[in-house]
Amino acid sequence: MKIFQRAEIEAVIRQPEAIAAIAAGFVAYSKGEVTVPPVGYLGFTHPPGDLHIKYGHIRGDAVCVVKIATSFYDNPKLGLSSSGGLMLVFSARTGVPEVALIDGGFLTDFRTAAAGAVAAQHLAPKNLRAIGIIGAGIQARLQLDLLRQVTPCRRAIVWARDPEKARAYQIEGFTIEVAASVAELAARSNLIVTTTPANEILLRAEDVRPGTHITAVGADSPGKQELDPALFARAEVLAVDSRLQCFDHGDSSHALRLSFASRERFVELGELIADPRLARTREDQITIADLTGLAVQDIQIAKLALAGLGRNPAV
Amino acid sequence: MKIFQRAEIEAVIRQPEAIAAIAAGFVAYSKGEVTVPPVGYLGFTHPPGDLHIKYGHIRGDAVCVVKIATSFYDNPKLGLSSSGGLMLVFSARTGVPEVALIDGGFLTDFRTAAAGAVAAQHLAPKNLRAIGIIGAGIQARLQLDLLRQVTPCRRAIVWARDPEKARAYQIEGFTIEVAASVAELAARSNLIVTTTPANEILLRAEDVRPGTHITAVGADSPGKQELDPALFARAEVLAVDSRLQCFDHGDSSHALRLSFASRERFVELGELIADPRLARTREDQITIADLTGLAVQDIQIAKLALAGLGRNPAV
Repeated sequence: MKIFQRAEIEAVIRQPEAIAAIAAGFVAYSKGEVTVPPVGYLGFTHPPGDLHIKYGHIRGDAVCVVKIATSFYDNPKLGLSSSGGLMLVFSARTGVPEVALIDGGFLTDFRTAAAGAVAAQHLAPKNLRAIGIIGAGIQARLQLDLLRQVTPCRRAIVWARDPEKARAYQIEGFTIEVAASVAELAARSNLIVTTTPANEILLRAEDVRPGTHITAVGADSPGKQELDPALFARAEVLAVDSRLQCFDHGDSSHALRLSFASRERFVELGELIADPRLARTREDQITIADLTGLAVQDIQIAKLALAGLGRNPAV
Repeated sequence: MKIFQRAEIEAVIRQPEAIAAIAAGFVAYSKGEVTVPPVGYLGFTHPPGDLHIKYGHIRGDAVCVVKIATSFYDNPKLGLSSSGGLMLVFSARTGVPEVALIDGGFLTDFRTAAAGAVAAQHLAPKNLRAIGIIGAGIQARLQLDLLRQVTPCRRAIVWARDPEKARAYQIEGFTIEVAASVAELAARSNLIVTTTPANEILLRAEDVRPGTHITAVGADSPGKQELDPALFARAEVLAVDSRLQCFDHGDSSHALRLSFASRERFVELGELIADPRLARTREDQITIADLTGLAVQDIQIAKLALAGLGRNPAV
């Protein structure tokens, strides 16, 4: 087994290839070509932390991927990142562990941002006034950075709970303005990406203008929420990365529970990519993509890293 | 993350320490001190194979362990072992992946054999006439090898489906005889270890003499069976490594289903080690230990390897 560290991995991952790989992953997932066992979980209390195991295999692939992601909230006190872990790539023909990618969460961050670009590519209106980014963390910056691949728009409006962080925000090639409120951001943007760990409504339905696409990536586990459930009643396309996951704990779950949308109204991103008739049909529609993060994204991004590192399996 | 290969790992694992560590692991497990999430599973069809993930954490431990074990049945055609995989050791304080033990199944084999020695230590009669080993694979040999730590008996009777394999059997220090049948083996031994992947009765109740201890390690997944369920009615101590697992798929599960034993009659090995009054009380009793294999054994043996390799975590 060969080990690669974060810097080596970052050097070989390119935005266009990552976006294409994640799109292909969504299609495979929605076609039922991906075996995805339930996520494994191990919790710690002293100090508080957790370890998640996501893994799976795409039918016919030469490799399978096991991702072990850790979150230890007190790590920054020790000068360590709170999130860590690795992706292990095994031969799907022999079970031999081929490669360990000690990416420190980079590949997860990148595949999540690539999914946002895929959603925008298929759902955002043609002419973007401005891109509204809610949140100012790593994911917020990466989302904007990857959107450059799917739109010529280089104007961004940022809102974050901490205005200092919003003001410090810089992404090469983009003109960035700080909004005083989420409502102001929504008034000025027609592509909005929410990237926070919020557990209550951040983006209100009445603040969203017709012709806006919203990608929500924050609600990746039970209890989290960013979007007003009422927004799902106004939106005309409701896309999810996975019905299974989004109906369980995505922003969609709140809309379903409160009857702002019925299950039949949702389409998986993989279905929509394969059949563009399911996507936006008019410029004035509101569309939503609820992304909870799939193991198939980990598989796809790990395969890309593997190819970039020249480590495609022999068998 | 530092990687260690099988040869380095084999060189630092000692039988007495392994037996003591496994015994301590059983006690911790039965005291409820071990977090053991459900086993993860990923199956493959072309070629046939599977990947299992066992993981867990003992309360207060500085590390947790994730074992990924693979079985690819066509591997021998490629000159590879059918079983493989690795154990990953993470800091339980920071989540940092400390060590990968690419043991090729060695640690699993060893911790399984060490559990057999623990069972014999606490349940076998004092004076052993001969040790009967059913099966002639790696596990059969390792079981006998580790029993040297818990009994002075050096006489073994072996039976295997393939008599050639039984005749080829050699373990340093032991006198080994081949039995023509399981019944003959049972007549001549008062400690019997079953180590086969059988899915029907191998050891019949009527063939077992009073004063015999039987350790069954083969039935580690649904559908497998080695012991006559009627034996559970004759036996006076029924020990299991885990009620949860053995009642689900151990030899005990068949005895329960057919009402040869009730649930209250079973004791966990960890309870029995902590309270010797639960073990054998007379030399003429029949006792059974049904071992399905626990993640806590993986944790304990990985910690032992870690210490031997001088890689105890800093934090």
